[in-house]
Amino acid sequence: MTPYALMDRSRLEAERNRLDQQYRQLKAQGLALNMARGKPSAEQLDLSMPLLSAPADDRAFIAEDGTDCRNYGGLDGLPEAKRLMACLLDDRPDNVIVGGSSSLTLMYDAFARYWTFGVQGDAPWCTLPVVKWICPVPGYDRHFGVLEAFGVEMIPVPIRDDGPDMEEVERIVAEDSLVKGIWCVPQYSNPTGAVYAPEVVDRLASMTCAATDFRIFWDNAYAVHHLSDQAAATIRVRDIHEACRQAGNPDRCLKFASTSKITFAGAGVAALAASPANLSEIRLRMSAGVIGYDKLNQLRHVRFLKDEEGIRRHMRAHAALLAPKFDLVQRKLEQGLSDIGACSWTTPQGGYFVSLDVPHGCAREAVRRAREVGVTLTSAGATWPQGRDPRDANIRIAPSMPSLSELEQALDVLVCCVRAAYVDQLLAKTNEDAQEDAREAPTADA
Amino acid sequence: MTPYALMDRSRLEAERNRLDQQYRQLKAQGLALNMARGKPSAEQLDLSMPLLSAPADDRAFIAEDGTDCRNYGGLDGLPEAKRLMACLLDDRPDNVIVGGSSSLTLMYDAFARYWTFGVQGDAPWCTLPVVKWICPVPGYDRHFGVLEAFGVEMIPVPIRDDGPDMEEVERIVAEDSLVKGIWCVPQYSNPTGAVYAPEVVDRLASMTCAATDFRIFWDNAYAVHHLSDQAAATIRVRDIHEACRQAGNPDRCLKFASTSKITFAGAGVAALAASPANLSEIRLRMSAGVIGYDKLNQLRHVRFLKDEEGIRRHMRAHAALLAPKFDLVQRKLEQGLSDIGACSWTTPQGGYFVSLDVPHGCAREAVRRAREVGVTLTSAGATWPQGRDPRDANIRIAPSMPSLSELEQALDVLVCCVRAAYVDQLLAKTNEDAQEDAREAPTADA
Repeated sequence: MTPYALMDRSRLEAERNRLDQQYRQLKAQGLALNMARGKPSAEQLDLSMPLLSAPADDRAFIAEDGTDCRNYGGLDGLPEAKRLMACLLDDRPDNVIVGGSSSLTLMYDAFARYWTFGVQGDAPWCTLPVVKWICPVPGYDRHFGVLEAFGVEMIPVPIRDDGPDMEEVERIVAEDSLVKGIWCVPQYSNPTGAVYAPEVVDRLASMTCAATDFRIFWDNAYAVHHLSDQAAATIRVRDIHEACRQAGNPDRCLKFASTSKITFAGAGVAALAASPANLSEIRLRMSAGVIGYDKLNQLRHVRFLKDEEGIRRHMRAHAALLAPKFDLVQRKLEQGLSDIGACSWTTPQGGYFVSLDVPHGCAREAVRRAREVGVTLTSAGATWPQGRDPRDANIRIAPSMPSLSELEQALDVLVCCVRAAYVDQLLAKTNEDAQEDAREAPTADA
Repeated sequence: MTPYALMDRSRLEAERNRLDQQYRQLKAQGLALNMARGKPSAEQLDLSMPLLSAPADDRAFIAEDGTDCRNYGGLDGLPEAKRLMACLLDDRPDNVIVGGSSSLTLMYDAFARYWTFGVQGDAPWCTLPVVKWICPVPGYDRHFGVLEAFGVEMIPVPIRDDGPDMEEVERIVAEDSLVKGIWCVPQYSNPTGAVYAPEVVDRLASMTCAATDFRIFWDNAYAVHHLSDQAAATIRVRDIHEACRQAGNPDRCLKFASTSKITFAGAGVAALAASPANLSEIRLRMSAGVIGYDKLNQLRHVRFLKDEEGIRRHMRAHAALLAPKFDLVQRKLEQGLSDIGACSWTTPQGGYFVSLDVPHGCAREAVRRAREVGVTLTSAGATWPQGRDPRDANIRIAPSMPSLSELEQALDVLVCCVRAAYVDQLLAKTNEDAQEDAREAPTADA
């Protein structure tokens, strides 16, 4: 098919009629599908059911160091839980602090402490006239939400296939000491699926920052979330902590991860890894509000996942459920959007999302129309700070939750709505052009 | 026996010799006992073992509203968990937010949010020249620790059998708008066991506060932790939220509770209750850092404890284990310290502590000596802001963790060390007096 932009008015109108009809048919199906969030499906959650009874046998609540996990204590986590989480964080167990169930909460808390108390003796960020933060875009809305809560000025920097645009990042951090950090999802970035190249990691670690208290918030949410054995065998992001050490900036990064998309979402175990100096500071600050996180849940996870090999095996089972969905997304987008032009999308090797760019100015309208026929997508704009995508082009596709047949329906709706929004945009434009031509053309009676 | 203060030097010296001998005998036993923290004993924790397998049967992870508790969501808790926690909070389920495992963390977070973002439009506390807080003393060291972390000026106010000295409290809050709150443990207060009288609750609710954003942090940690059926049947603190509503100050209080000393310490469920206006503000702020707390653990607790009657039955089993320990404390203190004078202690009807006042200036020394023979007590001074008891008199006794026989040994040590510290203090004093007399008396060659 000819790209829409090259069609004349009558062909566009024919296309609109065809899409209108399809839209009415979809609407008649009374769909109620949700592709808004990166939630695991029930089948994925079923994989972890043994967790629920994991430490139920006699004395199974005793940790390897003799700790009774039913009682208070253990500020920074059980030794075996640190070992387990170190696999996800690609770090040494003694660089790990195990938290509650949510890495988002660990990140929020880390940020909030820097805000209130400062970083290692530097001025608390709340005392500065403004705090700025680099946000690779498209990115994760909850990352932006943390910054928004504190009134931080977010600086969007485009993300590419190999990570954020480093020339842009280096320029920004070099010249402004109020730029205090950057969000990074280094592997299977949310939503593009980008994997940071080793050079990008090295440049992040070694770049010259005007702020001595600059921090990389390294949210390795998808560290083991490969979609194929091929990806599992070949994709591994360079360790930022190691890179920071080598660059002589050992305290620059905080790494985060959780088992939310490994075991149970929101009922898993979260952890962070950092340098000894960062760890001491975090432990000291957190001890004012924490006696110890849920050690029984830590123990459950250790008993269930066991070790790196156990995690790998478990994630293969997730991939078996997820890969067909990601394949379907590729197929449907290819079939549905490759011919009209001005659309592009990513083909991630892992993670939870596909990032779709539709013709500029069409994302919000497409998402609105999809909702009208019962398909909820992530809000257009959500992948940008403050929910404002300046091109109104990006849509995050989250295929994990629906079943394959639901996903197929949802993608049919999405494709139809993107096409229709684009056709309408072009028709409106040809109308404007026509009016403009009419205004510009000499009239009979002029 | 004659009170020590009335003994002459030779009798004091004889007593010291006797105590020294006893101390050496105790030391020879090579004890390693810990009475420092209010931790449940292993036997108490055993009472909740069914929790570990509570939601293990098929589909048992589905909440009553159909929520799959293995997945994301549920910012403020499951409906059934709100109902359960409302029993502990003495409030309506729709006034409840269910949190993670720790009420300390809920309190810290609530405070931290007010610090950074302010209370309902008032200036954030971090922007004020100083923030002050009323701390009934003796009190709970972790409450003081939260304030210390933020550099809050703590104003100690004595606590009596029926709650804090309200004349003092009323005077302080009326005159200074920088006084932003008060800690309260209204039932079986930590460490005295005081139960707030209805008039005290009403006065807290209705007193005139210079600060419009004054908040009562109502830590009802021991709401159902009675030591006898008699106490369970008769003791019930007036609801502060109701009192605040009636006084026209509906937003003045935040109530907190957890199941840490009901089920598993640090692996239970915590919750808060507050007015609708406070709840909206808390939900809004917390949503920046929280997607939802561990709903599986909420469900476990609901299935295990069931309801108010289930909690009552369960707490009776706790009381059966705890009451003999509290009885033993009373017996040993009576036998060991009633004769020497200048000592007093509380006789709580519930909770986790007995508050012991020893002769002024002797607490730190007694605790030090006890540690030297292997008995760890709560640090002397810990019950005061910044760990500084101006009289150096208060010692918190936490009898729950040791077995009865260990407790007996630990109390023998405590008694011996208090007596010895007091004797030594008096002997040092008679020495000083003698030297002073010698200086003042006319000498032969003068």
